Amino acid sequence: MSAPVLHTDDTSDVELEANIERATLASRVLAHTSVAERAALLRAIAARLDDAGAELVDLAVEESALTPARLRGELVRTTFQLRFFADLVLEGSFLRATVDHADPAWPPAPRPDLRRMMQPLGPVVVFAGSNFPFAFSVAGGDTASALAAGCPVLLKVHPGHPRLSIATGALVRLGAQDAGLPADVLQLIHGEVAGRAAVLHPVVRAAAFTGSLTGGRALFDLASSRPDPIPFYGELGSLNPVFVTPAAAAAQLPEIAAGFRDSFTLGTGQFCTKPGLLVLPHDADLDVVKAGLAGAGATTMLSGRIRDGYANRLAELLASPDVTPAVLGSESGPRDVTPSLLVTTVASALRDQHNLLAECFGPVSVIALYRDEIELLELAAQLEGQLTATVFGSEQDPLTGQLVSALAEHAGRVIIGAWPTGVAVSWAMQHGGPYPATTAVTFTSVGAAGIERFLRPVAYQSVPDGLLPAALQERNPLGIPRLVDGRPEPGQAITEEDLNA
Amino acid sequence: MSAPVLHTDDTSDVELEANIERATLASRVLAHTSVAERAALLRAIAARLDDAGAELVDLAVEESALTPARLRGELVRTTFQLRFFADLVLEGSFLRATVDHADPAWPPAPRPDLRRMMQPLGPVVVFAGSNFPFAFSVAGGDTASALAAGCPVLLKVHPGHPRLSIATGALVRLGAQDAGLPADVLQLIHGEVAGRAAVLHPVVRAAAFTGSLTGGRALFDLASSRPDPIPFYGELGSLNPVFVTPAAAAAQLPEIAAGFRDSFTLGTGQFCTKPGLLVLPHDADLDVVKAGLAGAGATTMLSGRIRDGYANRLAELLASPDVTPAVLGSESGPRDVTPSLLVTTVASALRDQHNLLAECFGPVSVIALYRDEIELLELAAQLEGQLTATVFGSEQDPLTGQLVSALAEHAGRVIIGAWPTGVAVSWAMQHGGPYPATTAVTFTSVGAAGIERFLRPVAYQSVPDGLLPAALQERNPLGIPRLVDGRPEPGQAITEEDLNA
Repeated sequence: MSAPVLHTDDTSDVELEANIERATLASRVLAHTSVAERAALLRAIAARLDDAGAELVDLAVEESALTPARLRGELVRTTFQLRFFADLVLEGSFLRATVDHADPAWPPAPRPDLRRMMQPLGPVVVFAGSNFPFAFSVAGGDTASALAAGCPVLLKVHPGHPRLSIATGALVRLGAQDAGLPADVLQLIHGEVAGRAAVLHPVVRAAAFTGSLTGGRALFDLASSRPDPIPFYGELGSLNPVFVTPAAAAAQLPEIAAGFRDSFTLGTGQFCTKPGLLVLPHDADLDVVKAGLAGAGATTMLSGRIRDGYANRLAELLASPDVTPAVLGSESGPRDVTPSLLVTTVASALRDQHNLLAECFGPVSVIALYRDEIELLELAAQLEGQLTATVFGSEQDPLTGQLVSALAEHAGRVIIGAWPTGVAVSWAMQHGGPYPATTAVTFTSVGAAGIERFLRPVAYQSVPDGLLPAALQERNPLGIPRLVDGRPEPGQAITEEDLNA
Repeated sequence: MSAPVLHTDDTSDVELEANIERATLASRVLAHTSVAERAALLRAIAARLDDAGAELVDLAVEESALTPARLRGELVRTTFQLRFFADLVLEGSFLRATVDHADPAWPPAPRPDLRRMMQPLGPVVVFAGSNFPFAFSVAGGDTASALAAGCPVLLKVHPGHPRLSIATGALVRLGAQDAGLPADVLQLIHGEVAGRAAVLHPVVRAAAFTGSLTGGRALFDLASSRPDPIPFYGELGSLNPVFVTPAAAAAQLPEIAAGFRDSFTLGTGQFCTKPGLLVLPHDADLDVVKAGLAGAGATTMLSGRIRDGYANRLAELLASPDVTPAVLGSESGPRDVTPSLLVTTVASALRDQHNLLAECFGPVSVIALYRDEIELLELAAQLEGQLTATVFGSEQDPLTGQLVSALAEHAGRVIIGAWPTGVAVSWAMQHGGPYPATTAVTFTSVGAAGIERFLRPVAYQSVPDGLLPAALQERNPLGIPRLVDGRPEPGQAITEEDLNA
């Protein structure tokens, strides 16, 4: 078998078949790793990335035009994420090990011994995002959670940062070897044709994607059209509306405006959680909101293609007779832009949702002015699926509670008094939401539960202890938390040394 | 608004719109019920079914031609299932409440207060199965788990038992009213056109289906084709192969044969877990396997349509030059049949998987004879997705372990030395599997985890305690098990009285 592809040319059919063959072998090895081995894999990858941090950040700056400070932070987040999943795997709750002992009195017929746990789905394809060259790319959250689950990854490289992807991929593969596992737990593929072919390949068991609505929907349709449809976890985009109550606007507009400007222009507005809509009372002082924006310096977008998409979408918004620019940004050079701020009314936005309430990826946000609380709640009720929705209000004001309730029906994350552009990697994070925010409303792509996307449950009935996976054996050799006959059996502190003994 | 439909005519577009409007209202009420209220709902429904048990069983016998004893057992299972979900809801783990307190030292940036829990998806459509007029129909597992999750149900009646469906539906609605909730938490719809329209309706948030591969795939395609695709939980069918090792065949063939005959003819072979393939060594004594089958009396299939489907599929199998009948069943009357048993080789089955390894719903099974262990393992490796796969072997024989490992990659439930036709409602049950067994490999349609199909995660960031759902409030007023800063916080025994206080 030939060596893995290390160029950036599009992956050919023949190369993809070789990738798939290697992924199949890696899958067999990975599926039979212990939780300790999988934790060691993730930590070894993190260590490799740490060691090469400076060079990686340099490459990332060059290819993405994001700032060194931002990229250093993102790399910290990425290695933290790998170690977070290492800890999570070792703790073992993710296996959801459940033991039902045989019960002759169970209705309506005697219950046999039944034991259920999560097992890896098999090889998966991950489509890297453009806007987080570390955290949503080669060694990002999808890869970390897939490897934690025991699934090898075919990583479709984002063309925005090909050299960084190859460098990161090589380090992930070295990390795997450091941990005594096949390098082929991760392989890179290049080009849209190969990406589509991977989604359709019989061996591939799931796909994860971060990117545009158009691209993601096309791949979702492919995954669903297979003779054997596979789960497609697409994170497609979001408007991330921010609702400001009349009381909050009266009390703290300057502070809200400053946070808003920082949040929607962060990373040149290229965040899936960028607040793309600020909903204000009709009498809010817009001069306060736009203060200083007109003088903002130009920043560089991720690629010329993304800049073009931004310019086109911005033109669509500006073409609406219901939209007026409060600040009209400029373009300088092929990828450099300054931010724009547009104004419309909630009534207009409700009439023309298809245009005025759709995402525009880049440094622009729309202010929608509401006449009264009824109109504000009407907008909250009519929203499409969102990754996030934010309220500035107070606990004492009943309107705030009404907004929180309404928004929880449409968004994966509801925020009060803060900005959506930070996405912490932690146990309670939810980065998902109803369509079009994602194609898989019951899952998250960030945080501990992200691992669930790559696992499937298997029950063992009347299987003797010696033939059961360790997680389900009677004496609980892994010391993991389990549910036994409907009651929690707490995990025990078992060290890695115990497990390797 | 007009009264709910109580006839068996196909539901018209206008009626469906009225159904949807009522489901929307019921959804708002149900989403805001406490866990205690939802438990009371499920128990009230179970009580109504218990009270009417004799009449329901009579109706079911009349419409389904299943035996009274079987249907009485199935009704016990159904009311048990409702109460099982009541207990589960009250216990609260299903909410997966997770609390991450703010942490200024969290990498790479301070973590805000984040709290995540499961919330109902909204109105769902459930397609009843034909073969379990109680347990997979109007008040069956899909309905019980959807209501437990807080989702109102539009129940597409199976035409095989319309009067039983109407009677059961009326009792479910009365039960809801007993519990102080809207009757419209469940509404019946009739006809394929209305079923398809419900899957496509913007208000409907998910669909669950038990039935044929053809019908289920068509509905899956509809659900995936929506402008906003929704989860489609289809349980479509399974061959449920049974592998007998050479050692097991030598030691216990008569016992295996007796269990096999009982299992594949149970309920006239109309179980989704019917063992449709028995894999035996080439020298197994087939006279032992078929003993007594030729003299079996005729039993009645669920409907003329299902009988016709059975006859056609059986003819396809018999048309194969590689299949010989060991026992050829007969048909008497429009729905009465006696069992058939066919014989082929594993080599043939591997060559013609599309015919020989596809489900035939009804009282027939295929014996596939293997030449050697390599062929046996080859078959295990090449299987399509299955609900169940069974091994007769011993822990001491390495072949048994190899089969268990291989089968766990293709089946939702792996069984040793028992038959797949019992599906206990319990915590560890898995009734699912890779396609074509189901369209949603990460879920189960039976057992505690079935509730996960109807829930979606929502995170609350920096939301004051007074505006949080009870499950996430700081003092844990529901006393449910939670994960707090990555550590389990055990649930407390809180009584329903406490909750209602």
